[in-house]
Amino acid sequence: MEWRELDLGNCSVAATLNLVGERWTLLILREVFAGLHRFDAIAEHLGISRRALSERLRQMVDVGLLERRSYQEAGQRSRHEYHLTAGAQDLQWVLAALLQYGDTHLGDPAAPPVVLRHSGCGGQVHLELHCSCGHEVAGSDVEPAFGPGAVRMST
Amino acid sequence: MEWRELDLGNCSVAATLNLVGERWTLLILREVFAGLHRFDAIAEHLGISRRALSERLRQMVDVGLLERRSYQEAGQRSRHEYHLTAGAQDLQWVLAALLQYGDTHLGDPAAPPVVLRHSGCGGQVHLELHCSCGHEVAGSDVEPAFGPGAVRMST
Repeated sequence: MEWRELDLGNCSVAATLNLVGERWTLLILREVFAGLHRFDAIAEHLGISRRALSERLRQMVDVGLLERRSYQEAGQRSRHEYHLTAGAQDLQWVLAALLQYGDTHLGDPAAPPVVLRHSGCGGQVHLELHCSCGHEVAGSDVEPAFGPGAVRMST
Repeated sequence: MEWRELDLGNCSVAATLNLVGERWTLLILREVFAGLHRFDAIAEHLGISRRALSERLRQMVDVGLLERRSYQEAGQRSRHEYHLTAGAQDLQWVLAALLQYGDTHLGDPAAPPVVLRHSGCGGQVHLELHCSCGHEVAGSDVEPAFGPGAVRMST
């Protein structure tokens, strides 16, 4: 089978893009990862309209990226905070990849505005590609191959 | 400074999304990574309209993700192939992150349609988060911190 014959219906890249491919979704996830959990704080920092944010947060709860937690400040009505679900934690891979590419190729590599830290030891975190033989692998040395779920496109 | 005070104008995540955040862009990059370089092959495999593909390829050449190379088949006019630029190779980080998230959380982890291989040894490639102290780090143990390029939002 050649690549052009592969059925793309179960492509995991496309599936993840279906989940987080809308630009605001990843920027909202960035805010929640960074510790903003409340509607007003996210809306103000992102400069997104309250209506668009409300709609987007609702969708992100529906698909299981965020969960609502109630809080209530003295004299105010009960409101929601937004927190990452356990499944969404692994989207750090995607955010870290976007960050690392931007730092390396689009920004000033010597002066990134944001770095990632290991909460355990404080060390700076970066992404690496590793292979099952134990090599660290450069992006240019990666090639796709068919896995056990590969299906030929019906013609 | 708190996160909500950080000026997002030089955010590397947003910069990379500006470059590749349009859904077709990442899917076209996936095709070129996988070895499809010719217009007709990409159009047919992706199921994208010829007009949309043409426009998108032109933009990807303009921003330096793809480069055109001429080829000519006997009896035909000269045409272009599309190849990744050196800078675009590191977008493997982004594609690998999307793939790995989808395989883990959205697909059948035991039967991915596509795997990544190290062209040197054939070993299967995956992403890891590492810290500068040498630990492999889980997504849930990553936290953002301000880097030297952090700027406070002007009020």
